[in-house]
Amino acid sequence: MKPYTAPVDDYLFLMQDVFGLFEGGLAGGADLAPDLVEAILREAGRFAEDVLQPLNAVGDAHGCRYHDDGTVTAPPGFRQAYAQFVDAGWNALAAPARWGGQQMPATVATAVEEFCNSANQSFTMYTGWGLYAALMLEAGGAEHLRQTYLPRIVAGEWSGAMGLTEPHCGSDIGLLRTRAVAEGDAYRVTGTKIFNSGGEHDLAENIVHFVLARIEGAPKGSRGISLFLVPKSIPDPETGVLRPNAVRCDGIEHKMGLNGSATCTMTFDGAQGWLIGAPNQGLAIMFLLMNHTRRAIGVIATGVAEAASQRAAAYVRDRVQGRSPIPGRRSDADADPLIEQPDVRRLLLTIRATVEGSRALVLWTAWQADIAEQAAGQQRNAEAQASLDLVTPVIKAYLSDITFDATVLAQQLFGGHGYVTATGVEQLVRDSRVLMVGEGANAIQAVDLVLRKLRQDDGRAMARLVSDISGCIDACPPDDTFAPLLASALADLEASTRHVQAGAVAAASAGAYAYMYLFGQVLLGYMWLRMAAAARKNLGGQDDARWRFKIATARFYFEQMLPASAVHRQRVFAESDYMMDLPADAF
Amino acid sequence: MKPYTAPVDDYLFLMQDVFGLFEGGLAGGADLAPDLVEAILREAGRFAEDVLQPLNAVGDAHGCRYHDDGTVTAPPGFRQAYAQFVDAGWNALAAPARWGGQQMPATVATAVEEFCNSANQSFTMYTGWGLYAALMLEAGGAEHLRQTYLPRIVAGEWSGAMGLTEPHCGSDIGLLRTRAVAEGDAYRVTGTKIFNSGGEHDLAENIVHFVLARIEGAPKGSRGISLFLVPKSIPDPETGVLRPNAVRCDGIEHKMGLNGSATCTMTFDGAQGWLIGAPNQGLAIMFLLMNHTRRAIGVIATGVAEAASQRAAAYVRDRVQGRSPIPGRRSDADADPLIEQPDVRRLLLTIRATVEGSRALVLWTAWQADIAEQAAGQQRNAEAQASLDLVTPVIKAYLSDITFDATVLAQQLFGGHGYVTATGVEQLVRDSRVLMVGEGANAIQAVDLVLRKLRQDDGRAMARLVSDISGCIDACPPDDTFAPLLASALADLEASTRHVQAGAVAAASAGAYAYMYLFGQVLLGYMWLRMAAAARKNLGGQDDARWRFKIATARFYFEQMLPASAVHRQRVFAESDYMMDLPADAF
Repeated sequence: MKPYTAPVDDYLFLMQDVFGLFEGGLAGGADLAPDLVEAILREAGRFAEDVLQPLNAVGDAHGCRYHDDGTVTAPPGFRQAYAQFVDAGWNALAAPARWGGQQMPATVATAVEEFCNSANQSFTMYTGWGLYAALMLEAGGAEHLRQTYLPRIVAGEWSGAMGLTEPHCGSDIGLLRTRAVAEGDAYRVTGTKIFNSGGEHDLAENIVHFVLARIEGAPKGSRGISLFLVPKSIPDPETGVLRPNAVRCDGIEHKMGLNGSATCTMTFDGAQGWLIGAPNQGLAIMFLLMNHTRRAIGVIATGVAEAASQRAAAYVRDRVQGRSPIPGRRSDADADPLIEQPDVRRLLLTIRATVEGSRALVLWTAWQADIAEQAAGQQRNAEAQASLDLVTPVIKAYLSDITFDATVLAQQLFGGHGYVTATGVEQLVRDSRVLMVGEGANAIQAVDLVLRKLRQDDGRAMARLVSDISGCIDACPPDDTFAPLLASALADLEASTRHVQAGAVAAASAGAYAYMYLFGQVLLGYMWLRMAAAARKNLGGQDDARWRFKIATARFYFEQMLPASAVHRQRVFAESDYMMDLPADAF
Repeated sequence: MKPYTAPVDDYLFLMQDVFGLFEGGLAGGADLAPDLVEAILREAGRFAEDVLQPLNAVGDAHGCRYHDDGTVTAPPGFRQAYAQFVDAGWNALAAPARWGGQQMPATVATAVEEFCNSANQSFTMYTGWGLYAALMLEAGGAEHLRQTYLPRIVAGEWSGAMGLTEPHCGSDIGLLRTRAVAEGDAYRVTGTKIFNSGGEHDLAENIVHFVLARIEGAPKGSRGISLFLVPKSIPDPETGVLRPNAVRCDGIEHKMGLNGSATCTMTFDGAQGWLIGAPNQGLAIMFLLMNHTRRAIGVIATGVAEAASQRAAAYVRDRVQGRSPIPGRRSDADADPLIEQPDVRRLLLTIRATVEGSRALVLWTAWQADIAEQAAGQQRNAEAQASLDLVTPVIKAYLSDITFDATVLAQQLFGGHGYVTATGVEQLVRDSRVLMVGEGANAIQAVDLVLRKLRQDDGRAMARLVSDISGCIDACPPDDTFAPLLASALADLEASTRHVQAGAVAAASAGAYAYMYLFGQVLLGYMWLRMAAAARKNLGGQDDARWRFKIATARFYFEQMLPASAVHRQRVFAESDYMMDLPADAF
């Protein structure tokens, strides 16, 4: 048996039966028939299973190698796999057609992204730059930059990297010191960036750095930050021949995991760079990428937990140890498979409810992104964009938290064997741990949600979402046992929203994390209500075992997981002034 | 600043102010003056800080080395540190005086054990055998075995290892296949053991293996298992000269963490061994050790989380990033220390409430062990033993779960810097992860608690404990705001206990984990109520900041953490039959 099988059928269920995406022409402009989407997903699944997955343990064990000349070698096999990835067009999947991309809707791209990350999170970190570069360059890049860079990045010949964090400046980007000095139509960029993923490697011919820097004389803080395109090698405008730029990798991090991904310290030593967008407007453009990658964290998180879940389920079905506590279920052998233990099923259902709920939510979010992308200016699109903005911090932080927990539970199902490298699951725990700190640590997301997202439009996006969820609850038949449980959690959320919107900033910050959890739980409940309804509709055919399992997982979610919303509500309302009154050095 | 400072004062507070141990002569027979105990703890703290802690990262980075001749080298520096440890008498601390030990009470040994594990969990795995070997050999070892082995093991010249798990046999020890054949007054032991911690290394001259095996013709299952002493090298009865036994290390595991501790695969190839206890009675004797090591897991867990907590607190006090949301608290600089963020304080208080609550509970448990140790047969001692048996699975499983979560939160406070090895906290996460699977995976503990411990004496031990906690609640003044919160959680526990004791085995197993959490939360609440009362009593002197912090941490525990008990109660009562009805291959 393969250690990982892409959950293509679960995506088709979500797309078709739960969200009815094909009826709307797979929102996002593309008019894709279900069988074409299925063919793409099956092909992507095979690529992930057969090409990427076998390299995952290799990447972990071997890691990236930094050489004294500043070059970095990716783990064995990554270079060949990258060439295959690019040749098969996966790098161009979501990129705009005008630059050679396939411009697939975000819903389809999300599925492919999940599969690749389940198979090999480190490898997948090097990809996706076709879309990311287009987002930034189309928003603010000069035409010559677009023409020069986008076709090559979309084709995967060149890759990209983001230069953001500095040693003294992480979440507080306003502190950054990298500076830029104008020279002709370009700039000289000088400074050091850390935690630069894929900043240097041997997979692509060139690496295009998108670097945040402060132009000489610009204001202090976040209002004085500009974005620059700083290529590792500069193509000659006439011949295209590459000449090196003053960009140097000074080392790579030794990390808890994600060893196959090179986390670089990059020094820009008067490197030539070109401004993207207006001076001092760099953060707005960078956030076009950042909002995308924050949502991608939810997708990656789902993928890694899915991979762990599959390994754990296979193990407990196979591993014979102890007796089932239910005499009627005992086999004739000396011991029964672990899956005959009620506590093992409790763990598996916790994991499945988390992973499948997360998958539904990231797909729903991608759908909102597709709607928002359509001809701008329409009200429906603006509303989708507002929903998207609102849930982005939850997707990033809540999903990375709960899928990390699920991955740790999957490891737990292996007992002592989960602690040794050979079973493959401990790597998934180490790899997925980065998602809680990458793209802005999760606490930043919670505060962003409560102090910014919830307040920015007088709470209209939140009110619309609550009304959608209420509508879904009301549409359930009166004997539905799940709907009242979701209604109760939704009431917790509404009360908490009012409290947080009205509260002082300090109190709202102290309750932000609990609020985010409550919101996330309700969103997953919304997804599970829709999934349970669709599964019930499907009952009566040959796949009944599958639909009954889906409904049982929904039941587990509503009865055992969602009730924690009441505790989060209590935490949102808890007094917090006394915490701030404690002297800092008492901690 | 040192990365770790032993919390000696917190132990003295618990011993003196909270539990009043010195008034009872530090139960356990030893009549120790407070200043002697303080001197021991300060000395142990210095040893942990100065000798063991600096080797922790070395052990992680270098790991143990397996050589083709079957030998294993511990990480650089471990050999010298072990010699210092033994010379200073730490190995003999808790061992019986009759074999050269210092026979310190478990309360004192617990503090020292926590410090050593905070400083270097891997190193500390090699120690403690003086006590463990005495427990088993005094219960069932022939006099010549005691005389030969105990003095040397207590002195640390020889160390020990437990041979328990086999590839096909982990939690279900009844499946074990290692066999023993009588030969003269000894046996020949043949079989392969895995996950054998310290099974081979270069720290001590000899390693004494305690091996579970089945004597030829013994019954199947757990009733046919005997315990053997199988030394790596056999001392000549006359000269003491060591000659090698047929004991070979076939390799060491590559693990998620705990790299400084050699996890060995051991092959016993007709190795000479001596029976300990009666034939087929091996498990009962092995459990004298196992119950001790299961409680030790709680101590180790507390220690590792304490180390992570100290690092995190130092980081957020120092790291300047972003503005405090409270304008009055902003500094003149461009940014404020992270500790000015309410969410950071929420995290720190979560960690402190967990760690200090766990510490109180493991010390309370050690106190029960000391009482139980005193002249046997007295009712008070039997009651202490029953309490001890009851809480052992909770100490092992609940504390390792919550302190792992606390360690992950400590890592989170570092943001992206917590993911890189250099900050030292990610190692603590990887190391502490083993505690949830070692000495019986945590699910086994929950089921043991519910199906065995809770039922074995008609629930009398539980009833006594509930009555103690009720008494503590009733003794609080009427305006105490914490006591009613504990009373509410205690009511959840009592209702759940009745439900679980009366319920069918399958339902009780399905709710076992939630029950264990509920029990653990109440136990920590009990500890926090006692700590808060003692801290209030201490108010009015020069240490007021310290006592106010303790009371604030108690408040955080009662208001924000303990309320989750209601959710655990719901889970205990949740229906579970539908989970068992799902076909195994649907998972």
